Amino acid sequence: MARIRFGLIGAGFIGRAHALAIRAVNATFGDLPAIAEPHVLCDADLDKAVRLAAQTGFARATADWREAVEMSDAVVIAVPSQFHAEIAAYALSLGKALLCEKPVGLSGAECQALADTAEAGGVSNAVGFTYLRAPMVAHARNLLDSGALGRPVHFYGRHFEDYLASPTAPFTWRLDRRVAGRCGALGDLGCHILSIARFLCGPVAGVAGNSVIVHRERPVSPGAVELRTVENEDYASAQIRFESGVPGVIETSRVAPGRKMDLAFELTCERGTLRFDAERMNELQVYLQDGADNGVQGFRRVLINSDHPDYAAFLPAPGHGLGFNDLKTIEIAAFLRAIAAGGNVYPDLAEAARIARLCEAILDSSENPGWIDNPELPPSKQ
Amino acid sequence: MARIRFGLIGAGFIGRAHALAIRAVNATFGDLPAIAEPHVLCDADLDKAVRLAAQTGFARATADWREAVEMSDAVVIAVPSQFHAEIAAYALSLGKALLCEKPVGLSGAECQALADTAEAGGVSNAVGFTYLRAPMVAHARNLLDSGALGRPVHFYGRHFEDYLASPTAPFTWRLDRRVAGRCGALGDLGCHILSIARFLCGPVAGVAGNSVIVHRERPVSPGAVELRTVENEDYASAQIRFESGVPGVIETSRVAPGRKMDLAFELTCERGTLRFDAERMNELQVYLQDGADNGVQGFRRVLINSDHPDYAAFLPAPGHGLGFNDLKTIEIAAFLRAIAAGGNVYPDLAEAARIARLCEAILDSSENPGWIDNPELPPSKQ
Amino acid sequence: MARIRFGLIGAGFIGRAHALAIRAVNATFGDLPAIAEPHVLCDADLDKAVRLAAQTGFARATADWREAVEMSDAVVIAVPSQFHAEIAAYALSLGKALLCEKPVGLSGAECQALADTAEAGGVSNAVGFTYLRAPMVAHARNLLDSGALGRPVHFYGRHFEDYLASPTAPFTWRLDRRVAGRCGALGDLGCHILSIARFLCGPVAGVAGNSVIVHRERPVSPGAVELRTVENEDYASAQIRFESGVPGVIETSRVAPGRKMDLAFELTCERGTLRFDAERMNELQVYLQDGADNGVQGFRRVLINSDHPDYAAFLPAPGHGLGFNDLKTIEIAAFLRAIAAGGNVYPDLAEAARIARLCEAILDSSENPGWIDNPELPPSKQ
Amino acid sequence: MARIRFGLIGAGFIGRAHALAIRAVNATFGDLPAIAEPHVLCDADLDKAVRLAAQTGFARATADWREAVEMSDAVVIAVPSQFHAEIAAYALSLGKALLCEKPVGLSGAECQALADTAEAGGVSNAVGFTYLRAPMVAHARNLLDSGALGRPVHFYGRHFEDYLASPTAPFTWRLDRRVAGRCGALGDLGCHILSIARFLCGPVAGVAGNSVIVHRERPVSPGAVELRTVENEDYASAQIRFESGVPGVIETSRVAPGRKMDLAFELTCERGTLRFDAERMNELQVYLQDGADNGVQGFRRVLINSDHPDYAAFLPAPGHGLGFNDLKTIEIAAFLRAIAAGGNVYPDLAEAARIARLCEAILDSSENPGWIDNPELPPSKQ
Ligand SMILES: NC(=O)C1=CN([C@@H]2O[C@H](COP(=O)(O)OP(=O)(O)OC[C@H]3O[C@@H](n4cnc5c(N)ncnc54)[C@H](O)[C@@H]3O)[C@@H](O)[C@H]2O)C=CC1
Ligand SMILES: NC(=O)C1=CN([C@@H]2O[C@H](COP(=O)(O)OP(=O)(O)OC[C@H]3O[C@@H](n4cnc5c(N)ncnc54)[C@H](O)[C@@H]3O)[C@@H](O)[C@H]2O)C=CC1
Ligand SMILES: NC(=O)C1=CN([C@@H]2O[C@H](COP(=O)(O)OP(=O)(O)OC[C@H]3O[C@@H](n4cnc5c(N)ncnc54)[C@H](O)[C@@H]3O)[C@@H](O)[C@H]2O)C=CC1
Ligand SMILES: NC(=O)C1=CN([C@@H]2O[C@H](COP(=O)(O)OP(=O)(O)OC[C@H]3O[C@@H](n4cnc5c(N)ncnc54)[C@H](O)[C@@H]3O)[C@@H](O)[C@H]2O)C=CC1
Repeated sequence: MARIRFGLIGAGFIGRAHALAIRAVNATFGDLPAIAEPHVLCDADLDKAVRLAAQTGFARATADWREAVEMSDAVVIAVPSQFHAEIAAYALSLGKALLCEKPVGLSGAECQALADTAEAGGVSNAVGFTYLRAPMVAHARNLLDSGALGRPVHFYGRHFEDYLASPTAPFTWRLDRRVAGRCGALGDLGCHILSIARFLCGPVAGVAGNSVIVHRERPVSPGAVELRTVENEDYASAQIRFESGVPGVIETSRVAPGRKMDLAFELTCERGTLRFDAERMNELQVYLQDGADNGVQGFRRVLINSDHPDYAAFLPAPGHGLGFNDLKTIEIAAFLRAIAAGGNVYPDLAEAARIARLCEAILDSSENPGWIDNPELPPSKQ
Repeated sequence: MARIRFGLIGAGFIGRAHALAIRAVNATFGDLPAIAEPHVLCDADLDKAVRLAAQTGFARATADWREAVEMSDAVVIAVPSQFHAEIAAYALSLGKALLCEKPVGLSGAECQALADTAEAGGVSNAVGFTYLRAPMVAHARNLLDSGALGRPVHFYGRHFEDYLASPTAPFTWRLDRRVAGRCGALGDLGCHILSIARFLCGPVAGVAGNSVIVHRERPVSPGAVELRTVENEDYASAQIRFESGVPGVIETSRVAPGRKMDLAFELTCERGTLRFDAERMNELQVYLQDGADNGVQGFRRVLINSDHPDYAAFLPAPGHGLGFNDLKTIEIAAFLRAIAAGGNVYPDLAEAARIARLCEAILDSSENPGWIDNPELPPSKQ
Repeated sequence: MARIRFGLIGAGFIGRAHALAIRAVNATFGDLPAIAEPHVLCDADLDKAVRLAAQTGFARATADWREAVEMSDAVVIAVPSQFHAEIAAYALSLGKALLCEKPVGLSGAECQALADTAEAGGVSNAVGFTYLRAPMVAHARNLLDSGALGRPVHFYGRHFEDYLASPTAPFTWRLDRRVAGRCGALGDLGCHILSIARFLCGPVAGVAGNSVIVHRERPVSPGAVELRTVENEDYASAQIRFESGVPGVIETSRVAPGRKMDLAFELTCERGTLRFDAERMNELQVYLQDGADNGVQGFRRVLINSDHPDYAAFLPAPGHGLGFNDLKTIEIAAFLRAIAAGGNVYPDLAEAARIARLCEAILDSSENPGWIDNPELPPSKQ
Repeated sequence: MARIRFGLIGAGFIGRAHALAIRAVNATFGDLPAIAEPHVLCDADLDKAVRLAAQTGFARATADWREAVEMSDAVVIAVPSQFHAEIAAYALSLGKALLCEKPVGLSGAECQALADTAEAGGVSNAVGFTYLRAPMVAHARNLLDSGALGRPVHFYGRHFEDYLASPTAPFTWRLDRRVAGRCGALGDLGCHILSIARFLCGPVAGVAGNSVIVHRERPVSPGAVELRTVENEDYASAQIRFESGVPGVIETSRVAPGRKMDLAFELTCERGTLRFDAERMNELQVYLQDGADNGVQGFRRVLINSDHPDYAAFLPAPGHGLGFNDLKTIEIAAFLRAIAAGGNVYPDLAEAARIARLCEAILDSSENPGWIDNPELPPSKQ
């Protein structure tokens, strides 16, 4: 069986989750067509790279991402967003299979260029919209495809967190346009709910956004008197018209007290409704209007079990539950399958480009109020 | 149509709820066989009686309960528990239909004597185990009777509140055996969950109790230094063997922080399960194992609607909900129907006697640890 | 004390709720400055009027609304929406205090004309946005005013029901523009969530809507083959910019399977968040970021108790809960107080006009996509 | 740093979870005093052992547990319960550190003998009461120890599942006394809630049980006509008197439709209450009576974050959640620390013996109804 030497760039929060996942993936999924070999781990902070490599079984560590890319078959990019594009371009140019964290680049154009390169080179690629891997999100899609719910009627989704809720939380690179890109909450969180919206409801025909910076200045560092201007939005909403004619709304916020991982959606269909919240990701609320007896109709709290995608790879027993790190293991498994099949994971770079353009259109239509048609198309085709 | 002149004894918390219910009952239920006429309202505190009578449309007010009984066709007793038996005996002796608040007397023997008198005299009677009137509790029984759940397998119920949770909450009459009777939490709260247990699972063949006084002394009044010994239990549990062979557990507590009206049960059956909590009394959680597809099985949050008993009398629209006072209106409606039919409401005095004996058996078996057989039977027949 | 003779026009679903409330209000609220006298009940269907009058204690019944208006001191309008304006105008012209159900007229202009008449005549008035009377909604506002939450940051609200979810549900007057007005779900449901949005977040500076008719044709009657075109929206969303700068989103739907009374909001503030859902109207979810210990921070499920507005008038005991009909009793109490004080209830006719214009602006901006500024102002002032 | 060669016996459901945990533990916990080396994996089914060993990185595979024990430093026993005692005795006799799955033996006496051997030999040991490792259960204990809740007042706990809810589910070894031991649901599930009860409330002074076999016969195999008699209980309840005087109740069932991993407790204390359910193991419901303002008091849904034990080893971000397999990783980490420190993990073999005796006492007191004092003590000392 093919052994895929993984090069992981970034040993921070999500880099570590990838390292654990790469280590766990073949042990968890017994039926994969390839083996993930933890080969090289890179971080600008070499000590960090060395330490995490030792801990998680990577053969080598380096501070030089080029070197890491070169010595790998597959590259995972888990560094801050402004470096994604350059590293990705290099990896693709060498034909390395690529799993890039979201957001892929600082702009839709950057994403699209990468997608085009990958397609031209026939290079397998995937993007870390991790929640599409949650079994209950995948199950939502399966239920929809089964026809049990009828066609979608309207969609609401959001991703709320509170990591910047405190007005005195200090300035970070995420608030700096040159580093994080033009998008704030949208780029960090909103893209997740947009990935789910597209996954369930399909292409977007029109969008109208509204965004605000709630806390316009923040201390340059914890407790500092000096303030720095925040450069991207704390909150955004958008109305959506899907191509299918289905209307939708999404919201995203990084200043929402009490919401820790509140990526949630409600998909209303003709004959039923689905509700999901990542704070309880082992559950799906399902309403099925399946008969005349209103005495026993109601939203069902469905607990995860082996009838839901990928769960059985972890556990045979219902309701025992997965954690966030398990989603990364599922993500790496999907990546391995795509590599072996010579294709891409959905969502791939092209999908990331569409999502990035959606985010930009939300901001554009917030700045110049109004609807934008065909926001997913590259500007030339809109 | 017969007009039933109501005499209401007690103008406190629950007396007031009865006054509102008597006033509302025929306006709410259009199809009753008799009319409740708010005739005389009695309270030892005459001012209170006069005020509430004026407010709620009672024709007269008095401080003399004998007078109130004499001038009425139907009597509602809503005074502190130690007065119930004497007033009830008088009402029954005059053949007045009787709705007595729980607990009916200070002992099972007192209750039984009243039940016997009522039966001998053929006097319609009812007891204020109000939660049997909750549409979702009645619906639970209907679901069970329908066979959809299969036979009961085990039962858990509790009634927890926190009105005495604070160790410095002062002594009240409820803690005084001569006034409130031997039972503490059991007499005040536990009898409600026992009434539901019997309603759903039938007669009790054996019981083993365990009770404690958590806070053994309390200030004689708010803030006082002087302490008085608490004379009945703050918490009790019991294991139950129903005659059907079904096992059960109940608990009751008046010292449970955070529980406000936490009368709750779980009825586990062969093919399904029901969960109810009076803090959300407009919902019933229903699990039905109704097919092979585990992908969509789960507890259903069923919201109240006109397929549930008595709801349609209040509202045609689903999910709008009833409040506690509406349950009292349903109770008075059932009482009127029983009077017109010349029968009793379930639960009646005989049922209250069974429940009272159950409470006593729980305390007996707590004092002399072990099981008591046939605890519902009068002592002579055990 | 003044006795206010009530004339109630309409004996349907909500007319009946008003009749019960008029009957209950002084019995429930002991401290009102006036007495509601159930005087005349009118319905085009005279039998219905006679029956409900008899049941709920109204002295007279009539099929002629003019007569009913003339013989009353205060008029409650609870007939289908297309009759509101004419009856209201007549009542105001005679100086009768007016409580009109929502929506007040078929257009903002109709509402405004009525508001102007009322103001000119100094006639007390109120509008049936009943959920502003829910104790937990009122409490939300009080919490906000107390400063405990900091200033609002963003708002999301919706009103979803499923009464037209089935594609084969037949055509009704609500779908007919001439009868129900131009607004569909917005006029029936959306106006409730808009009334809450304004109550909590203040005036609206801009709005952008999106609406769809999901089921474009319906059988003319149950089971009919003949179809009729639906004339107003099944679903609408809107993005909002409040004058304060706070952004918001609202949605409304009458085709949302599983939602029975799903009027819900989330008010995100600087230091806390509130969540409410009318399906559990006796609860408010409250998050307060009130200290450093993250080990015990979380959304609190606050159960209704006597610290919440108006609850104590019904019950002294916490968590026992109110039902929808109780909200109407609170509404009538507020109306009586306003009459006695010679003022209006909030929300009054002027408020209803603002809400009606908001609804129209949502539809306008859905038809001609884009934002509308100052949508609450009469067209002349926009 | 010491490398501990692990021998894992059993490659079934829970054996696999251990294999993944052994593989993950040092990668997850960076600060452990020893390294877990996946050395030898044993299963009676050699193919299974070989396959899982290959998948999860164990150096060797064998079908002979003696061999596996001999070549290891630490032994994990994850085979069916009837083999635990013999394997454990052998491992202890060779001084191998031991992590044994629950239940440790088929009787309290077997457990105690092992505990005595381990103590005599000074051998580090641990038992797989995995839910004591759940961060929110550990946090519950920390909150209690902090004094924030006051002293415990009463305890309720249960472990309900539905794997045998169907009356036609076939006979398995778990229903056979010779293989599974005398305990049914108690041995499989009830021991978990007893481990939590003791962890939070301390030693048990008295117990009174009640158990039933709900489905007395089952098909010998799926769909078979031939039936076999079930030999141990489907459901048991017990009343408990803790040494502290605190009363408690526990229940356990393997025939409870809809409950998948419903290991739940409510710990009521003087000034607060904790609620936990393993079906939502990333949450703890916390009520704190912490002030006068009843307007904002309620149960708080606390989401897991880095202030809760062991969570930070997996993730820095709050609310992202752990899964069941992560609990096994925490268990192995605790085992490694105990080995390095030369001590035991709580719960150890001595604790398992106490729990086993509790289970037996529950059955004894169910067969001979009444209370049993000092049920945790070895029979000689009761
Ligand atoms: N899919 C998901 O759920 C999540 C995705 N992310 C994405 O992952 C990316 C990384 O985020 P975090 O892990 O939270 O950041 P982090 O700040 O925790 O870690 C970033 C790491 O990259 C290293 N680094 C920076 N520049 C580098 C360079 N030029 N070469 C090599 N290493 C470099 C840093 O030293 C640091 O160790 C971001 O793009 C973020 O949007 C983050 C969290 C969750
Ligand atoms: N079914 C239910 O859900 C509830 C039932 N109850 C039961 O109702 C009864 C009354 O309880 P509350 O209303 O809470 O008490 P309360 O203390 O609020 O009211 C009792 C009233 O009875 C009056 N009273 C006392 N002695 C009297 C006498 N000899 N003659 C006439 N009036 C007299 C008092 O002046 C007072 O107004 C109790 O037995 C209690 O167990 C109480 C609350 C709820
Ligand atoms: N605030 C709230 O929560 C609610 C408000 N409403 C509003 O209340 C109004 C009535 O709605 P429903 O009660 O649901 O309608 P409904 O159809 O149940 O009742 C309307 C009644 O008005 C009578 N009527 C019709 N034309 C009349 C006329 N010209 N004169 C006298 N009587 C006439 C009908 O015979 C019928 O009895 C609507 O405007 C609706 O929007 C309805 C439900 C809830
Ligand atoms: N802590 C927890 O949450 C859980 C604990 N358990 C406990 O783990 C133990 C195993 O249960 P499961 O994994 O569910 O059983 P299982 O039936 O899935 O796996 C048992 C494995 O042991 C092997 N085996 C049987 N006899 C053997 C022998 N003499 N030598 C070597 N291998 C042998 C079998 O071939 C099988 O692969 C039980 O004692 C159970 O109570 C099980 C599930 C959860």
